[in-house]
Amino acid sequence: MAENNYTFPHTIFTEYDKAHNVGVFTETTNHIYTEQTEYQRIDIYETPAFGKLFSLDGVIMTRDSDEFVYHEMISHVPLFIHPNPKKVLIIGGGDGGTVREVLKHDSVEKVVLCELDKKVVEAALKYLPNISYELKNPKVELVYEDGSKFVSQFKYEFDVILIDSTDPTEGEGGLLFTEKFYQNCFEALNENGVFSAQTEEPFLKKEWMVRAYRRISNTFNIARLYMGYVPQYMPGTWTWTFASKNLDPIKDFDPEKVKEFNKELKYYDEEVHVASFSLPVFVKKLISEFSK
Amino acid sequence: MAENNYTFPHTIFTEYDKAHNVGVFTETTNHIYTEQTEYQRIDIYETPAFGKLFSLDGVIMTRDSDEFVYHEMISHVPLFIHPNPKKVLIIGGGDGGTVREVLKHDSVEKVVLCELDKKVVEAALKYLPNISYELKNPKVELVYEDGSKFVSQFKYEFDVILIDSTDPTEGEGGLLFTEKFYQNCFEALNENGVFSAQTEEPFLKKEWMVRAYRRISNTFNIARLYMGYVPQYMPGTWTWTFASKNLDPIKDFDPEKVKEFNKELKYYDEEVHVASFSLPVFVKKLISEFSK
Repeated sequence: MAENNYTFPHTIFTEYDKAHNVGVFTETTNHIYTEQTEYQRIDIYETPAFGKLFSLDGVIMTRDSDEFVYHEMISHVPLFIHPNPKKVLIIGGGDGGTVREVLKHDSVEKVVLCELDKKVVEAALKYLPNISYELKNPKVELVYEDGSKFVSQFKYEFDVILIDSTDPTEGEGGLLFTEKFYQNCFEALNENGVFSAQTEEPFLKKEWMVRAYRRISNTFNIARLYMGYVPQYMPGTWTWTFASKNLDPIKDFDPEKVKEFNKELKYYDEEVHVASFSLPVFVKKLISEFSK
Repeated sequence: MAENNYTFPHTIFTEYDKAHNVGVFTETTNHIYTEQTEYQRIDIYETPAFGKLFSLDGVIMTRDSDEFVYHEMISHVPLFIHPNPKKVLIIGGGDGGTVREVLKHDSVEKVVLCELDKKVVEAALKYLPNISYELKNPKVELVYEDGSKFVSQFKYEFDVILIDSTDPTEGEGGLLFTEKFYQNCFEALNENGVFSAQTEEPFLKKEWMVRAYRRISNTFNIARLYMGYVPQYMPGTWTWTFASKNLDPIKDFDPEKVKEFNKELKYYDEEVHVASFSLPVFVKKLISEFSK
């Protein structure tokens, strides 16, 4: 028995995509936190490969090792297009990673984070300090309610709105994927307003990607899909849709502003900004085939 | 018991990365082929999510649903840089996907495919017809031997060399990842020669990515890393390194040639060509930090 080199970890986190019968797994060394809240099950694990891993209903939301990709891309692409972003609304994103990136822009005076589940914010503050620390910044106002309802009360209020939501569910995909919701976001933005939403990915979730993109482009004057290398979200690619009332993410982009930026970024720069809008042929086809 | 909705598939393919204790899995409906050859274990499965899935020693090599990304990117990036590619050497790539893409260029008169394991070619021809069909093209010469040895006999012979290898193993990473091998490829290329090799990825395999890139850039006059969205290879991102004696993959790129190309491509176009060389900040750092 001295030859027994069995070292397979005894605790495995598995994310299982029931619709396709595929999944990913990773060793965990500690199940730090678990709670069934009013809305969902929250889990936080310690993992050797990815550091802290945070899941909702068994789906990875963020993890220490590579969360920077998603959080930088949802934030800096729109924020570098707005000439002077002061007031930002984030819907979802209770882990705080998007808030952290937004606050790297010195012009920002106020960030309203509207997260449905207070327990997500509390867990992030306690267990994910590298991601959540800016949630305590005095510029941040935390609101715990349904984002679709919250945004509907504003007209010409925000410079930037970011939709950092969970995946859509059955039917209409949850209130954060409806055309009515996107219309309310449009109305809550001021004249130079810019918007970015996570819009799924083109390999396993192309129907939802196309649907979200189409609804956003039906609502805004300008809408452009962009992509990134996001290993935390199976299958490793993710998209967002930039939208605005009048600003174009390429024509109105000034690479000098990024070169002069005084904060450290790990993924995004002026080259990545432009390249992320260059979509693979099959993705261009997917979003053009579906008529408005 | 009428309520029992248990539908979890009874047969699961798992790719397990022992170094990181992470992995991916997918349902299989048929284990079409399995053989332990002199070199490796070959398996081919039917999967609902990805069509036919081909693995070597338990690692996914290719699959119907998204193989086009890898095969287009390793082929068209260098082939569109060479002014008139006629003679092409592919090392590895016994599934035939790279041959298929190379032969979309009408200028190509001859493709030599040097694959170590004849059983890979035989299995691909029998079970992966959509990927392998061009292996029977009369322009193709099949050679079954060690690619590192094979390439060392040529001087100024090829216009294009593509290294479509498996992952590096321990130590030197296998003969297809040594500086000596890359030197032999350099010598086997003629004056306008271009080269592309798969060079792993920057999240889980950054050491190998950097090592391969550094060795190629030590050898060639021009070397540039490029990236793609490749879900078949965990964690969903992949890199290749373009290299050449004198041609630059951006300055010497003519987008008009791609626009006029008369074959259908699903991933690559003139925009993707340029964008794939725009690397995330952390990837730029990884390849610049390691000194030659």
